[in-house]
Amino acid sequence: MLTPVLVSIILFISMGEAAASENSNIMERLKQLEETQNNLNHVWTMMAAALVFFMQAGFLLLEAGTVRSKNSINVAQKNIADFVLSTVFFGMFGFMLMFGDSWNGLLGFDMNLFSFNKVDDWTFTFFVFQVVFCGTAATILSGSVAERMQFVGYLFATIFISAIIYPIFGHWAWGNLLYAENASYLADLGFIDFAGSTVVHSVGGWCALAACIVIGPRIGKFDSEGKPQRIIGHSPVLAAVGTIILWIGWLGFNGGSTTAGTPQFSHIIANTLISGAFGGLANIMIGYWIDDNFRPDRSMIGVLAGLVGITAGCDVLSTWSAVIVGFTSGSIALLATEIIEHKFKIDDAVAAFPVHGAAGAWGTIILAFLMDESQLATESRFDQVLVQCWGVLLCAIWTFTLAYLFFKILDKSMPNGLRVSEDHERMGLNEAEHGTSLGTGELLRGMQSLA
Amino acid sequence: MLTPVLVSIILFISMGEAAASENSNIMERLKQLEETQNNLNHVWTMMAAALVFFMQAGFLLLEAGTVRSKNSINVAQKNIADFVLSTVFFGMFGFMLMFGDSWNGLLGFDMNLFSFNKVDDWTFTFFVFQVVFCGTAATILSGSVAERMQFVGYLFATIFISAIIYPIFGHWAWGNLLYAENASYLADLGFIDFAGSTVVHSVGGWCALAACIVIGPRIGKFDSEGKPQRIIGHSPVLAAVGTIILWIGWLGFNGGSTTAGTPQFSHIIANTLISGAFGGLANIMIGYWIDDNFRPDRSMIGVLAGLVGITAGCDVLSTWSAVIVGFTSGSIALLATEIIEHKFKIDDAVAAFPVHGAAGAWGTIILAFLMDESQLATESRFDQVLVQCWGVLLCAIWTFTLAYLFFKILDKSMPNGLRVSEDHERMGLNEAEHGTSLGTGELLRGMQSLA
Amino acid sequence: MLTPVLVSIILFISMGEAAASENSNIMERLKQLEETQNNLNHVWTMMAAALVFFMQAGFLLLEAGTVRSKNSINVAQKNIADFVLSTVFFGMFGFMLMFGDSWNGLLGFDMNLFSFNKVDDWTFTFFVFQVVFCGTAATILSGSVAERMQFVGYLFATIFISAIIYPIFGHWAWGNLLYAENASYLADLGFIDFAGSTVVHSVGGWCALAACIVIGPRIGKFDSEGKPQRIIGHSPVLAAVGTIILWIGWLGFNGGSTTAGTPQFSHIIANTLISGAFGGLANIMIGYWIDDNFRPDRSMIGVLAGLVGITAGCDVLSTWSAVIVGFTSGSIALLATEIIEHKFKIDDAVAAFPVHGAAGAWGTIILAFLMDESQLATESRFDQVLVQCWGVLLCAIWTFTLAYLFFKILDKSMPNGLRVSEDHERMGLNEAEHGTSLGTGELLRGMQSLA
Repeated sequence: MLTPVLVSIILFISMGEAAASENSNIMERLKQLEETQNNLNHVWTMMAAALVFFMQAGFLLLEAGTVRSKNSINVAQKNIADFVLSTVFFGMFGFMLMFGDSWNGLLGFDMNLFSFNKVDDWTFTFFVFQVVFCGTAATILSGSVAERMQFVGYLFATIFISAIIYPIFGHWAWGNLLYAENASYLADLGFIDFAGSTVVHSVGGWCALAACIVIGPRIGKFDSEGKPQRIIGHSPVLAAVGTIILWIGWLGFNGGSTTAGTPQFSHIIANTLISGAFGGLANIMIGYWIDDNFRPDRSMIGVLAGLVGITAGCDVLSTWSAVIVGFTSGSIALLATEIIEHKFKIDDAVAAFPVHGAAGAWGTIILAFLMDESQLATESRFDQVLVQCWGVLLCAIWTFTLAYLFFKILDKSMPNGLRVSEDHERMGLNEAEHGTSLGTGELLRGMQSLA
Repeated sequence: MLTPVLVSIILFISMGEAAASENSNIMERLKQLEETQNNLNHVWTMMAAALVFFMQAGFLLLEAGTVRSKNSINVAQKNIADFVLSTVFFGMFGFMLMFGDSWNGLLGFDMNLFSFNKVDDWTFTFFVFQVVFCGTAATILSGSVAERMQFVGYLFATIFISAIIYPIFGHWAWGNLLYAENASYLADLGFIDFAGSTVVHSVGGWCALAACIVIGPRIGKFDSEGKPQRIIGHSPVLAAVGTIILWIGWLGFNGGSTTAGTPQFSHIIANTLISGAFGGLANIMIGYWIDDNFRPDRSMIGVLAGLVGITAGCDVLSTWSAVIVGFTSGSIALLATEIIEHKFKIDDAVAAFPVHGAAGAWGTIILAFLMDESQLATESRFDQVLVQCWGVLLCAIWTFTLAYLFFKILDKSMPNGLRVSEDHERMGLNEAEHGTSLGTGELLRGMQSLA
Repeated sequence: MLTPVLVSIILFISMGEAAASENSNIMERLKQLEETQNNLNHVWTMMAAALVFFMQAGFLLLEAGTVRSKNSINVAQKNIADFVLSTVFFGMFGFMLMFGDSWNGLLGFDMNLFSFNKVDDWTFTFFVFQVVFCGTAATILSGSVAERMQFVGYLFATIFISAIIYPIFGHWAWGNLLYAENASYLADLGFIDFAGSTVVHSVGGWCALAACIVIGPRIGKFDSEGKPQRIIGHSPVLAAVGTIILWIGWLGFNGGSTTAGTPQFSHIIANTLISGAFGGLANIMIGYWIDDNFRPDRSMIGVLAGLVGITAGCDVLSTWSAVIVGFTSGSIALLATEIIEHKFKIDDAVAAFPVHGAAGAWGTIILAFLMDESQLATESRFDQVLVQCWGVLLCAIWTFTLAYLFFKILDKSMPNGLRVSEDHERMGLNEAEHGTSLGTGELLRGMQSLA
């Protein structure tokens, strides 16, 4: 009686063991394989970071091309220096404030300043992606105050933005991106700003506006009657390349913000492309309607505003909504350019506030109206609208106030103030601050001595 | 008697259940893992799209550097505007015509214009990749008609190319790329054009040729005896950077055309690199042999023609074949440049037809002679040669005829014709159409007033 | 008695068969899935190669912007030509010497010149990555000898570097990268140079130094008393963009050197970013301390030297070590620039030796002091220091000697020597060698005739 039972039990056990060993082999291989998706997330995020980094080259070309020849080297150097400093100071302080363990959702902290040798791979990849984001927020200022702000003052401003202003506001909106369990004030309210229309671009835009107000317009920007004069940059060609490069970089900016190698980025990037195109289309058409002319700055403002506008909602919006966001953001940036110049007599040399500040605010708010009901992060669409408005307003209050105070204090405490001397401004900052001039500067001098 | 049977059956069932549950767990994980390869395809295709997009910056620099200073802003603006418009119009119409459900292999259709919120992730990724391809085809025109075509006319041409000419021919060759079950006239015949020597580059090249013929040469291009004069662009430095950027972008253009993250792209990209290099080598050598001089346009034409030439066959050709394709494509483009200028008195300002049209046709045909027998898409090599020739010829007929008629009609129907006034042409389009000039333009004016 | 046993055996067998078939199905799917990680390695390496290729555009802009207008086209053409030639000659000879079957760890060989149709996918991907590396090593020379070396002579130098100097030294350090079983002289000693501070950058730097010595300084670089004069490049704006682009490309240079799509690159890329930033910071600070001025070349030298310095140790160093490497490498390059100019009266037009040679040597040696004990490739830290020093010294001996002899022989054997005539040097190589000038050149001529 027992024999067959024993036989079957023995067979059973031996088979179970074989199966178990085979299964544990399979499980081991499965585990290794599951690493591959993780690896892919790293690859995607890092390649997207390279694209966002590329935006630094775009900003440099856009801004250097938009200023006069005599200040072009200065602007280019500011673009290098701000990336250097924002990497250093965001690395040492900002990253911790923005993504560290949260203190009541208000700011992050932990004592691991730069001690990345103790942290995991993902933190490194995430760090690289966030450094280049901070670089974007910090560099927006450089163009708007071009041709008149002292280089040293600009360096201090970059440090302040990348170590304090940007990361603290960033913590409110994105503080839970690295440590998911973190509280994060705005995010917890349901604020949606997927890739930073407000967090990155409006922050940059408000800083730029504050600086422009404190430092005042360039000599000759407004005539004796206060009428704004057009100051033509020395190379709209470089500015145009810069615009295309920014557009390319934006694919990484928005698409990479998934920080995952999954097709979530597919519709995001399609939206980004389309919104930029419709922003450009809007401004080419409006511009031609205004004065039968295709002024080069307009198409660029249009494309960039379209890109800024879609950044907040690129994930939650449909393709048609991207069309609407692009078209309206472009138009609004063009309108804002006119308003701040003609009505408020503010001289923003590269339209940084209209493009990054105004279109950023617009894009952050309008998404609440256009997004699908099912994706709301709040209880109702009305709540979503309120939260989006509150985020935009909070950004304005926090950033503008702090930046304004900072520039005022800096202006008072620097020996000669924040602004270069009138002589230096007329001479151009290339020579005044960098002892260097473009080849064309040499020509100009030759011509003057000839005359 | 029954007990042992019962025991073994019970054991068996319980074990089976355990195994089944474990297996279903494994199957679930396997399914998730199989997503990863799919995700990788998205990542690769999207990154390749970013590289192709980068070619827009390359074209802008190449063309702006190759024209005179007074038209450089105009060319740059055309490059921004054509990408804006081709995104809008290829997005709204062309994409559907090219990749929608096929009507007899002749054109695609479906009613989901831009309603991408209803489609799947792959369609979005594929769309982004195809939009930047269309942008390439559309932008080829901009350089060849530089310095004399009205901006408005150029905008209409871009719309026509990206909404009609390119996508319909594209459907014949690639109509089954998105919906594999689609009929696609040329593809079904066995026509091989892997990444678009004909579909993209020759289409652009034939449009450029038609436009050059309709609009005529620039003032001063041919002297009173019809001898072509060399018009030197204002910045061969920018043109050189543009060439390098195009080369880089081409890695994505050809490698990304696999639309899959698999090592199929390895030999494709190696071929691309090598063919570009041998194209450049050919023209550096030939150029030096002609006049002991290293004219900058030659090396650039060589590299670009080598890249255009390998585009059709990069997948099916061996490394040595890539050497041959590169060397011959470079030479042919140089020869074609001489022929259209000296023999046909056609003024193609950036050699767009020789590089994209002639080398594209050559590369499409020669692959049939060089490819391995085993990879033929037709019954015999002879058939393959015939099909390749037919595809090239059909492209010439379709594109040139349509473009020629379009430009003729446009020329008649625009108030002042397709061409700017003689005054504007002499003044330069920077000022005439964009109310802006380069810094050097300012200098020039100063010098003239001085004289 | 037998029935139950039979029943259980039959059950067992049938179940085993089902399980076996299910298992073989699982195994098959697992195998396919394991391809995905391999595919991801290809994707990462290829995308990194595109970034490294991008450095060619960066070098072109940096160098063209750093020379005078009259030589800018020449420098740009050298940058195109050297990539063309290094692709051709590294492809045909160098790749084999560097990575082929090793002959005693001294040089590689096999007869498969360019017969890549017989090799596997990985070899193609690896080839593309290595070609762009060789391009970097080869192009470093172009800037340092700018404004005075004959174009033809430069072409020969490129061929010699990419076919002989670079790949043979490369074999000693990296000869086992493709065939892991290869002997590789320095690697077998425990020499660490992860991404090529020595293998790529110092090789380029030593070639540049040898060439500068043989060819002598530019007319006007040293005054009659031997005091070095500052020769200002015509566009520090383009040079600045070039620097940013090089920085971006370096993410691929260092990160891609893992040739694997795994998070090993995460800390590598973070280190790269940080070291570049601290290099820039060092030189901005030191420069301002020297003369209260922000000379544009300093920030660029700083960033680039920081990047060169971290290249060898990016994998084995911690974040804080990257800070140290960056800061010191920047400083050392600045110091070396002064020394070779003031003490040795060597005219290196773009500071190629200080940046690539000096900072490269420094970075390769210092890593042995900073790296974690556990990662030593030798028995003790002392041994590691010795091996690193020996590698650096061997590179200097091999490269400098060979390059010096080569340039001497070339100088004697070329009809008019390696250097252009004094007339040509004064006229500028744009016109002398390329029959072309920048738009500003036209202006200058106009002004001269006016005067």
